[in-house]
Amino acid sequence: MSRIVILGVGAVGGTLAVALAEAGEEVLGIARGAQLEAIRAGGLTLRTPEGTRHAEFPCVASPAEAQLRADDVIFLCVKTQHTEAALMQLRDAGLQDQHVFCFQNGVENERLALRYFPNVHGVTVMLPADFVQPGEVVCYGAPCIGSFDIGRFPSGFDAADSALVARLEAAGFPSATRAAVMERKYGKLLMNLGNIVGAALGEEVDGKAVTAALKAEAEAVMAKAGIAWSDPAEDDDKRAAQLQIVEVPGVTRVGSSTAQSLARGAGSVETDYLNGEVSLLGRLHGVPTPGNDWFTAQAARLVREGAVPGAVTLSEVEAALGL
Amino acid sequence: MSRIVILGVGAVGGTLAVALAEAGEEVLGIARGAQLEAIRAGGLTLRTPEGTRHAEFPCVASPAEAQLRADDVIFLCVKTQHTEAALMQLRDAGLQDQHVFCFQNGVENERLALRYFPNVHGVTVMLPADFVQPGEVVCYGAPCIGSFDIGRFPSGFDAADSALVARLEAAGFPSATRAAVMERKYGKLLMNLGNIVGAALGEEVDGKAVTAALKAEAEAVMAKAGIAWSDPAEDDDKRAAQLQIVEVPGVTRVGSSTAQSLARGAGSVETDYLNGEVSLLGRLHGVPTPGNDWFTAQAARLVREGAVPGAVTLSEVEAALGL
Repeated sequence: MSRIVILGVGAVGGTLAVALAEAGEEVLGIARGAQLEAIRAGGLTLRTPEGTRHAEFPCVASPAEAQLRADDVIFLCVKTQHTEAALMQLRDAGLQDQHVFCFQNGVENERLALRYFPNVHGVTVMLPADFVQPGEVVCYGAPCIGSFDIGRFPSGFDAADSALVARLEAAGFPSATRAAVMERKYGKLLMNLGNIVGAALGEEVDGKAVTAALKAEAEAVMAKAGIAWSDPAEDDDKRAAQLQIVEVPGVTRVGSSTAQSLARGAGSVETDYLNGEVSLLGRLHGVPTPGNDWFTAQAARLVREGAVPGAVTLSEVEAALGL
Repeated sequence: MSRIVILGVGAVGGTLAVALAEAGEEVLGIARGAQLEAIRAGGLTLRTPEGTRHAEFPCVASPAEAQLRADDVIFLCVKTQHTEAALMQLRDAGLQDQHVFCFQNGVENERLALRYFPNVHGVTVMLPADFVQPGEVVCYGAPCIGSFDIGRFPSGFDAADSALVARLEAAGFPSATRAAVMERKYGKLLMNLGNIVGAALGEEVDGKAVTAALKAEAEAVMAKAGIAWSDPAEDDDKRAAQLQIVEVPGVTRVGSSTAQSLARGAGSVETDYLNGEVSLLGRLHGVPTPGNDWFTAQAARLVREGAVPGAVTLSEVEAALGL
């Protein structure tokens, strides 16, 4: 069986690494800093609603140390603002036509990867996890911890997609191939527009109306741009039932991946590729997107100022968006 | 009159800076390393077929030091692989709705900029210049040293385009607004596919047949993708006559910007956004592009190995491309 190389062992990459390693897969992690040290010293702990799991797997600091093999399967699990650098490192490490799977939010990663590599796949990631503390990820999904739609970019699916679906299902992730995977990823993009709302306001503030306004803007843009989208959960009740968000005993959920980035002072957030994607599409197609523009600018400001989640008040937001 | 901020004072940015400063424009350069030091110490020299020109203008190390003004006009003059970092720095320095003009080859810069800024313009750069030695650029154009087509991205043109055309013409650059500037930039992209051929083989080797093969591949891809293009020189005999490539006394031309990057050990080349653009389009639209794929991979290898122009033989190329 080929090796799975997980580039970026955060919330998504870490959950995948533990589950796949437990299922007997050969996993190699590529991580940085404190997370790399923690995994090397004691493996990775995965806390879930149904209990705590743990796996040890080799982890290196960069693709250059991965000694890539011709049949490696690459999982890209970094945020989009780190994708370009990761792709450069993978090419310098010898990656050529190995299959690259983008386990990432947003819709730009696949296009970035396709410039350098011919076999690029999109994955819609339904996996409610936190990464705040080195050596540990927390996933709030139950009874399953995550589920995936997988297909080639820009469209279609092939034997590599089918093979990966089988391996993910064997590791406990309900998954499916999908010929129009980007439709799903645009649907997921809509779901992620609220990430910055929760991060800016704090998760305890009710930002539903704000998020709805951002989503309505995005839907108008996508309609004008002729982009199809579908809700990743809408047409599969069985899978939806398998992935409920449930509390993990003794853990307070930080919130969206954007809130997590602020909370751990990551120095960047992926808002440019979530709300900023809406702004880009709006500018390309002549549709104003003031709400998403405003939040994208706020995200850059919060990072610049080293702010923590909850640094913006609801009344500031309502004033800015005219709500 | 508003200030012109030139980010990247290399062959294109340096030629513009000298000509605009000589014409009485307020110019601020943003440069790095030895070029920054040389400009600060003694200004910038521009050698042309018709004589040597020289200008002094302020130059800073980053957008953060530029003290950006609300009416600054920004010229992006870095290669595409440096655009994303430049955009991030400009945003952190406070850039918002100032007009950003992409004086750059390739067709990706405008899209990168539009994610962050609402007023983005494409410029087709016809300016045969070298930058090899700090403090000096050489431009081989005569009687004019360069000419430009300018328009908004993705299309149209506005008062900012018209105003810039007037300022460039006053500085000696025949220029015009163009509602479909990207058509011109795709035409220029085709012209730039040979940059890596000259850099790989050395400018003294006849690579015309190789370049023609790369161009034919690209034309097939662009036709399939529904992308229109036009030759930047084809329909304006008067402008073509104004910009002939002529020897500069005492100077041996290094060759394309790609050859210059290798020659000065810049650590990267823009092939990923020239030939690599063709590969990306081919993958998106299902058209094989083996020649452009091969040269893009060669460019990455030449940079990795610190090779100088001419490191590849014509027979290697012919074997790889089946010529």
